[in-house]
Amino acid sequence: MTKPLRIGIAGLGTVGASLARLLQTKADTIVHRAGRPIELVAVSARDRTKDRGFDASSLAFFEDAVRLAGEAEIDGFVELIGGSDGVALESVRAALSRGIPVVTANKALLAHHGVELARLAAENGTELLYEAAVAGGIPIIKTMRESLSGNEVSRVYGILNGTCNYMLTRMEREGLSFDVCLKDAQDLGYAEADPTFDIGGFDAAHKLAILTSLAFGTEIDSGSIYVEGIEKVTAEDIAAAADLGYSIKLLAVAQRTDTGIEQRVHPALIPAAEAMAQVSGVTNAVAVDTDLLGSIMLAGPGAGGDATASAVLSDIMDLATGVVPPTLGIPVDKLQPYRRARMRAHEGGYYIRMSVHDQVGAFAAIAARMAENQISLESIVQRQRAGKGDKATAMVILVTHETMENSVREALRAISDDGHLAGEPQMLRIERLD
Amino acid sequence: MTKPLRIGIAGLGTVGASLARLLQTKADTIVHRAGRPIELVAVSARDRTKDRGFDASSLAFFEDAVRLAGEAEIDGFVELIGGSDGVALESVRAALSRGIPVVTANKALLAHHGVELARLAAENGTELLYEAAVAGGIPIIKTMRESLSGNEVSRVYGILNGTCNYMLTRMEREGLSFDVCLKDAQDLGYAEADPTFDIGGFDAAHKLAILTSLAFGTEIDSGSIYVEGIEKVTAEDIAAAADLGYSIKLLAVAQRTDTGIEQRVHPALIPAAEAMAQVSGVTNAVAVDTDLLGSIMLAGPGAGGDATASAVLSDIMDLATGVVPPTLGIPVDKLQPYRRARMRAHEGGYYIRMSVHDQVGAFAAIAARMAENQISLESIVQRQRAGKGDKATAMVILVTHETMENSVREALRAISDDGHLAGEPQMLRIERLD
Repeated sequence: MTKPLRIGIAGLGTVGASLARLLQTKADTIVHRAGRPIELVAVSARDRTKDRGFDASSLAFFEDAVRLAGEAEIDGFVELIGGSDGVALESVRAALSRGIPVVTANKALLAHHGVELARLAAENGTELLYEAAVAGGIPIIKTMRESLSGNEVSRVYGILNGTCNYMLTRMEREGLSFDVCLKDAQDLGYAEADPTFDIGGFDAAHKLAILTSLAFGTEIDSGSIYVEGIEKVTAEDIAAAADLGYSIKLLAVAQRTDTGIEQRVHPALIPAAEAMAQVSGVTNAVAVDTDLLGSIMLAGPGAGGDATASAVLSDIMDLATGVVPPTLGIPVDKLQPYRRARMRAHEGGYYIRMSVHDQVGAFAAIAARMAENQISLESIVQRQRAGKGDKATAMVILVTHETMENSVREALRAISDDGHLAGEPQMLRIERLD
Repeated sequence: MTKPLRIGIAGLGTVGASLARLLQTKADTIVHRAGRPIELVAVSARDRTKDRGFDASSLAFFEDAVRLAGEAEIDGFVELIGGSDGVALESVRAALSRGIPVVTANKALLAHHGVELARLAAENGTELLYEAAVAGGIPIIKTMRESLSGNEVSRVYGILNGTCNYMLTRMEREGLSFDVCLKDAQDLGYAEADPTFDIGGFDAAHKLAILTSLAFGTEIDSGSIYVEGIEKVTAEDIAAAADLGYSIKLLAVAQRTDTGIEQRVHPALIPAAEAMAQVSGVTNAVAVDTDLLGSIMLAGPGAGGDATASAVLSDIMDLATGVVPPTLGIPVDKLQPYRRARMRAHEGGYYIRMSVHDQVGAFAAIAARMAENQISLESIVQRQRAGKGDKATAMVILVTHETMENSVREALRAISDDGHLAGEPQMLRIERLD
């Protein structure tokens, strides 16, 4: 029997406690598959005495995660503290600096300091693994680092936030309002008391920043992501999209364009007949378009203690069995600077919903403004009227063919200036998946 | 620069030629990602002189693949000859016997000799890799061997034959007959002149045999698979299933039951709202149900020169970068014998279509036979009548709740014996995906 891989875990929340239990209860399976035992030897947590469902009696306990990372006799350090800076960052630096490999589930840490940490790992001849940081239990990091390694990626995109997908699924299936779904998500523990991080698209953006680097061999640049949340998506939009044959999903997309790489997170209409449109509830999905494979899609649980712990465990097993590829797929000194494509240059189809003052000629004026901006319309539909007399309004839904985002914005400004609109227009992007 | 990994390829058909081109045209990417060059040094093919789009001038050419495997100065042998025996088997044995790792896309070889070859690899301290053998470009082998290694699998299932899925998709979307779709599939090169191997379910069964072993740690037993092809699926079945909210797919399923492990390939009704129901055309998909992850699904191209070559290349990159896990996920001497569950003990819902002589009491008699066999019905619908007078028949569609396959067969025999049926009844299984 080869010698055991000794593990220290910092952070014993849901995922950490689940992982510790797995390392004890699945010890036999793990030896079978890893070829050597994996032993939990040290932990760090706020509360030493709490019962977390595993035997902590023989473990070294550290008040300070940075000390665990820097001093414990371990062969691998698992960071499950969370947060992009502070103790999480310091402890990961401490482990890597002394050549101890690190496994983390911390997307914020990677999104903000991934390149620095990849360099630190390489300089110290060790590894940084983070399968659980993106899309929980879906093995997208391994797939991109290893299975697609001969491919050139043109686009990576997906549903990376379970909270948003849960809400949009319920809005679509039950015709519920945004607010009702948000409250239910909070009651079920899918959304935080302050849900901004999830529904504002920021959580998905952190994950996207990591995928972009893996896809295109560029430095991580989470500050250059165009982010729109789902707050403005209404039940009317979802119903109108369904009538047009689309589902609305919060998509995170990174795409190579002539001017650079687009990174964007926003609600998008996708064809209802696509498999990704059927990815429902808290499930996540990631698709990758490449030169050799065409398109592949992975779907599965994006969060949850056991699912995330499973992904962390697979990284630990990789440490136990052998060599792993460079942190970001290629050597860190080969990463290219990220070159941002401007969202105004984004090309695609658009869904536009407007509340229009119900006057003769309004339709014609709107159509004329679109034409002026070289926007070709796939459809223009009036869905419902409200109010009476001078206050009468009609809801108008436009769907455009492929055009430039800048043109759409110009046209909407002109229509607004013409005085036809009652309130702000809604503009959602249509994502072609083929 | 570390020293190159020298590769020999036996078999220069579509996949082999594509791989050879990739190794030459993507040499820079490969060095980047693998950390060392991968050099094609030797090939074996029937026709030495044929132009296959790559530079063969500096390569050692072998008439005999077994000699290439046994004698060439290589660090990896790629078997792309095909067939479960003969030269393919002999050459793989020759390479493994002298400690040279093997990469193959040959599902028949693995299905029939996988355990023997895994043992040979282990005895000689080398590796056998076969990502391309199941579901082409979908990284399901790596996912099961590495990403799910801490999980206990309860079921693995999927759409593993692109020809069948192409035909069923067209039958569903365009209302075409089986024969028309088969002819189109043949014209497009998706189906062979003798299509039995694909549409009879045997190709999917080979792939399933490999997945079963990985999922359950059992020896490969491709002879114990219950196989039903799609030949008997009619346009009427597809239309009736759609009305009931289902799609019909050729599913390959391996599932742990109380009595053993079910391995079965057959057309199945799956809920149309599931992502797998939207997997269309020649696309493949595999889903795995586990204790930790719940369910994950991977979808992508199941065949094609570049997609398959991409999977082969990812295996070669793994050879170049490091250690790989045991062939079948766990050491070969730890594999358990496969214990077969009887199909008659299969539990599930059933779709039954019968052509019934249109006589008073026929419905009641059918319902009574079902009740006698403890089969609870979800629905019983009469869809259409044909003929007149004594020759009049009605098409009756039954959907059962969960029951035992044996009970359904007993009930159908009794109904047939009662003399109510005009022709053989159709029985299709319903697969629950949740």
